[in-house]
Amino acid sequence: MSDIDMIRAAAARLKGHARRTPLLSSPFLDQIAGRRIWVKPECLQHTGSFKYRGGYSAVSALDKRARGVLAFSSGNHAQGVALAAAQHCVPAVIIMPADAPSLKIANTHALGAEVVLYDRAAGESREDLGEALRTERNLTLIRPYDEPQVIAGQGTTGLEIAEDAAAMGIARADVLVCCGGGGLTSGIALALEADAPGLRARPCEPEGFDDTARSLSAGAIQRNAQPSGGLCDAIVTPQPGDITFPIMQRLCGPGLVVSDEEALHAMALAWGRLKLVAEPGGAVALAAALFRADQIEGDDVIVTISGGNVDAGMFQRALTSYGDLT
Amino acid sequence: MSDIDMIRAAAARLKGHARRTPLLSSPFLDQIAGRRIWVKPECLQHTGSFKYRGGYSAVSALDKRARGVLAFSSGNHAQGVALAAAQHCVPAVIIMPADAPSLKIANTHALGAEVVLYDRAAGESREDLGEALRTERNLTLIRPYDEPQVIAGQGTTGLEIAEDAAAMGIARADVLVCCGGGGLTSGIALALEADAPGLRARPCEPEGFDDTARSLSAGAIQRNAQPSGGLCDAIVTPQPGDITFPIMQRLCGPGLVVSDEEALHAMALAWGRLKLVAEPGGAVALAAALFRADQIEGDDVIVTISGGNVDAGMFQRALTSYGDLT
Repeated sequence: MSDIDMIRAAAARLKGHARRTPLLSSPFLDQIAGRRIWVKPECLQHTGSFKYRGGYSAVSALDKRARGVLAFSSGNHAQGVALAAAQHCVPAVIIMPADAPSLKIANTHALGAEVVLYDRAAGESREDLGEALRTERNLTLIRPYDEPQVIAGQGTTGLEIAEDAAAMGIARADVLVCCGGGGLTSGIALALEADAPGLRARPCEPEGFDDTARSLSAGAIQRNAQPSGGLCDAIVTPQPGDITFPIMQRLCGPGLVVSDEEALHAMALAWGRLKLVAEPGGAVALAAALFRADQIEGDDVIVTISGGNVDAGMFQRALTSYGDLT
Repeated sequence: MSDIDMIRAAAARLKGHARRTPLLSSPFLDQIAGRRIWVKPECLQHTGSFKYRGGYSAVSALDKRARGVLAFSSGNHAQGVALAAAQHCVPAVIIMPADAPSLKIANTHALGAEVVLYDRAAGESREDLGEALRTERNLTLIRPYDEPQVIAGQGTTGLEIAEDAAAMGIARADVLVCCGGGGLTSGIALALEADAPGLRARPCEPEGFDDTARSLSAGAIQRNAQPSGGLCDAIVTPQPGDITFPIMQRLCGPGLVVSDEEALHAMALAWGRLKLVAEPGGAVALAAALFRADQIEGDDVIVTISGGNVDAGMFQRALTSYGDLT
């Protein structure tokens, strides 16, 4: 199971490979939120999202006899695993839906992975396809979040937050985390428990896909009514993970929920005030800090921008609606 | 006059105030350029451009008896000086054209400066207005580039580049710098001369405003035919500075010139591949690395993104033209 020792070991393996992202701020964002907002820009991470950390952690922990890795993903996990595998000279097979954005398929291929497409509409089972490939080629499956070494890799984000917060004298604050299956949230929560017990991780989700917030509230895993939809698809999963949920239940504060429009608004503010590119799902924690200030306590709040892999059309939509900052 | 000791002293004053920006990269950019591109993202600097470094250096070097500072600027220098002055509890008066973008006027005001507007169209002289304010209130003028302490502040960018290049084992490379009056270029050149003599600064400019490239080529200061125009206005000046030019003449390699369209293309690639927001003038060095590869030597090239203060309309124009990365 994931624990702080596993996170520290992952940090040692990631050193010199994952980018050490800073905490950024803007007086203009502070003014909106009524407190200081500190932004951890994982959009600047290799492959444009925190997923590289988990991918690298998992690949670097492989048994030397492993013949290659396998992942299911339509986006950020695919690119993170692809790059990490290439850097370890380990073959990677990524199973992606044929209707995934063509840029994400092209990027994953360009990062050195073999991309195998399946037809969601025709009812092809990616699990059957994956199982056949896995046994045939002796591949190791890297799950996107319910995987101890992936959680450990994402948890290195929390070690850095704890270190930077201490250097700035921030002893107590909420740490808002963009949450899908809970890999990043649970990893950060474990790191903060060990290194910054006054900081508390809180999952942030889009409306309609607030399975983690409801699960924490109910004390048991709840599912989303719909499997996907909305603008924040990159972070939507059917329900919290079996490994991640107990960690979040033990350590996290209540979840925060924002609308798609608020996520777009936060994207435009990250663009204008921080000069950062966020994807809609990557902006939900910033949106919560800006627009759910009444549900947050303290003079400081720390937020993750989990990724920036967004297409031009969606980015322009955010700027058209919210890009006028005057 | 500016020298390496003045730059090191500025670096000591800026420590803990200016952001220590990293060097970022993307395999997708490397592929276009045919060599490794390392990007110094000064768009992530406070106020969204490197100008904060020079502003902070100058304000922090003020005589204690100074009653306040004065600057002429329609953009980035204004915001850099305004924030630096506010942090030193020194009053700042910024003289801006009444037709400057309303966001830049609003930002400068919000950062604590007194903004005095003048009417360019009616032929009001900003120099007369400034001189009257300066004597009346005993203010110290902070010039945007031809000012030793400003050059020293911008030069701290070069110290960081030298340090990071050494850590990565890069002993020889061109360092492409977005160049207007030459404050950043000359400051970086001085820092590299001292700390990384195998790295060579080269000014990058937009077509039609290549005064520095032509001045270096001619061996004497040349003026631009037009005072302003084009998309890269933020970095356009009539000619290189009297202090900056001799430094550039002694230390810099030949200038590089790109079109406005190439700057927009580089903006879109910085957006998609680095998740960074660049303004057109801030993207000319990246454009030169990408689209003037035949004029550059070596396996590595280092480029500055000097700023990210761009309005939504211009950013959307870049994405509409070049945002489809498939």
